[in-house]
Amino acid sequence: MGIPDADIFPNATGNALKTVEAHQNPADVTLYAGWFCPFVQRTWIALEEKGIPYQYKEENPYHKDKEFLKLSPKGLVPALVYKGRPIHESLVINEFLEDAFPDTKPLLPVDPYERAQIRIAIDHVTKSIIPTFFKVLQSQEKDVQQAALKSLYEAFNAFAARFIGDGPFFAGKDLSLADLALIPWIGRLYIIEKNRGFDISNTDAKFQAWAKYVTELESFKKTTSDYVHYEQIYGRYLRNEAQSEAAKATRAGGIIP
Amino acid sequence: MGIPDADIFPNATGNALKTVEAHQNPADVTLYAGWFCPFVQRTWIALEEKGIPYQYKEENPYHKDKEFLKLSPKGLVPALVYKGRPIHESLVINEFLEDAFPDTKPLLPVDPYERAQIRIAIDHVTKSIIPTFFKVLQSQEKDVQQAALKSLYEAFNAFAARFIGDGPFFAGKDLSLADLALIPWIGRLYIIEKNRGFDISNTDAKFQAWAKYVTELESFKKTTSDYVHYEQIYGRYLRNEAQSEAAKATRAGGIIP
Repeated sequence: MGIPDADIFPNATGNALKTVEAHQNPADVTLYAGWFCPFVQRTWIALEEKGIPYQYKEENPYHKDKEFLKLSPKGLVPALVYKGRPIHESLVINEFLEDAFPDTKPLLPVDPYERAQIRIAIDHVTKSIIPTFFKVLQSQEKDVQQAALKSLYEAFNAFAARFIGDGPFFAGKDLSLADLALIPWIGRLYIIEKNRGFDISNTDAKFQAWAKYVTELESFKKTTSDYVHYEQIYGRYLRNEAQSEAAKATRAGGIIP
Repeated sequence: MGIPDADIFPNATGNALKTVEAHQNPADVTLYAGWFCPFVQRTWIALEEKGIPYQYKEENPYHKDKEFLKLSPKGLVPALVYKGRPIHESLVINEFLEDAFPDTKPLLPVDPYERAQIRIAIDHVTKSIIPTFFKVLQSQEKDVQQAALKSLYEAFNAFAARFIGDGPFFAGKDLSLADLALIPWIGRLYIIEKNRGFDISNTDAKFQAWAKYVTELESFKKTTSDYVHYEQIYGRYLRNEAQSEAAKATRAGGIIP
């Protein structure tokens, strides 16, 4: 069954390609990734930040390869295999990395209450921000786009107001899983700037400062490919032709898998 | 602004009332609860299982009380205040209890990979099961109800097949947060049995065995009120008149807050 999305540029480019090439040796951790996928990038950044050795394997999630489905039941990326045992769902994988690699840079605070605040922030990203981003991207009618943009500005501002103290990160001076949950979409804002009129100056200064700071992280840059190739993929979202699970869920108004 | 849901039976009854009465003294933990709310029950069961002292405070989430909004921004229950600091979102609260009370009965495995599997199970409950339950409940057209019922049977069976080994719980012989994430909805299946034709014999034996086992837990019974009072609330869902955040989200086809 041919779907347009299956015919995507097949590998990472630019800075991300260098990172891929540096992670071709077998390791305890195998990351099954789509180079373009924002959910993958959450985990890819975590691995880079924590300095965990991993083998990078490109997996086209639209192919639904039979062997890969054994590792990730809906064929979604990222999937991580640790010593032969598979885990999927980017947020679950990122919590796993905290549990399994305690001698690496922590991305969660030690204090239980502070950890809860990070998880509440992640929940806000999941429920309020990401679905709204996809709605802006995929909506075809101007009035629906405008309403979704307004919601997105509000969600970004609420996020900054509630969760960023003195910064520069959510948890203060330390990067955390809450930053990672959202950074990939900040790297994709230019798509809705070009095509939907998103203007970051419509968000509060606090959000803008955070967005600028996180996209200057080495781990973000090292897992980002050349922008021109993302445009091919997002072109399908912009015309609402995309067949990813996220795209279908957005059309149905439902939960992003 | 009067909404039908604000005029609900005001307190727990039956076994749950005894539990409420036994938790009126101030404690380090305060649980803000709606006696009828399934999301609350996830946390209420956790507190009972772990034997953590808590003060129970009834909070009508439809009133959106100003003081309560400072503790839980959308006015949702459950909210938990620990030594004066608030946390909301049942799943976040339950992870917090694991972090903050390490000397109580654990509801997560020690092994990082096993913990990840529990979190994947919770993710399946959140994305596949609970929205489908609400859809069965609130759909008005028979064909939509039937389609939703079919999805619910499939989601229950997938859950049992993927996550229950020898049982009796998801994690095997130990109760975990994955069981807690779903138990409250098992206690509400009778509503869709009576009103939507749900028949648990349409699910696999493995699921039925798990469902029976968990509803015999003391902690489930101690946090369950008399069934007749739940019917008043769910009557509004059945007529699709309910104004809870979950009901509105289901109508919009979106994410349950």
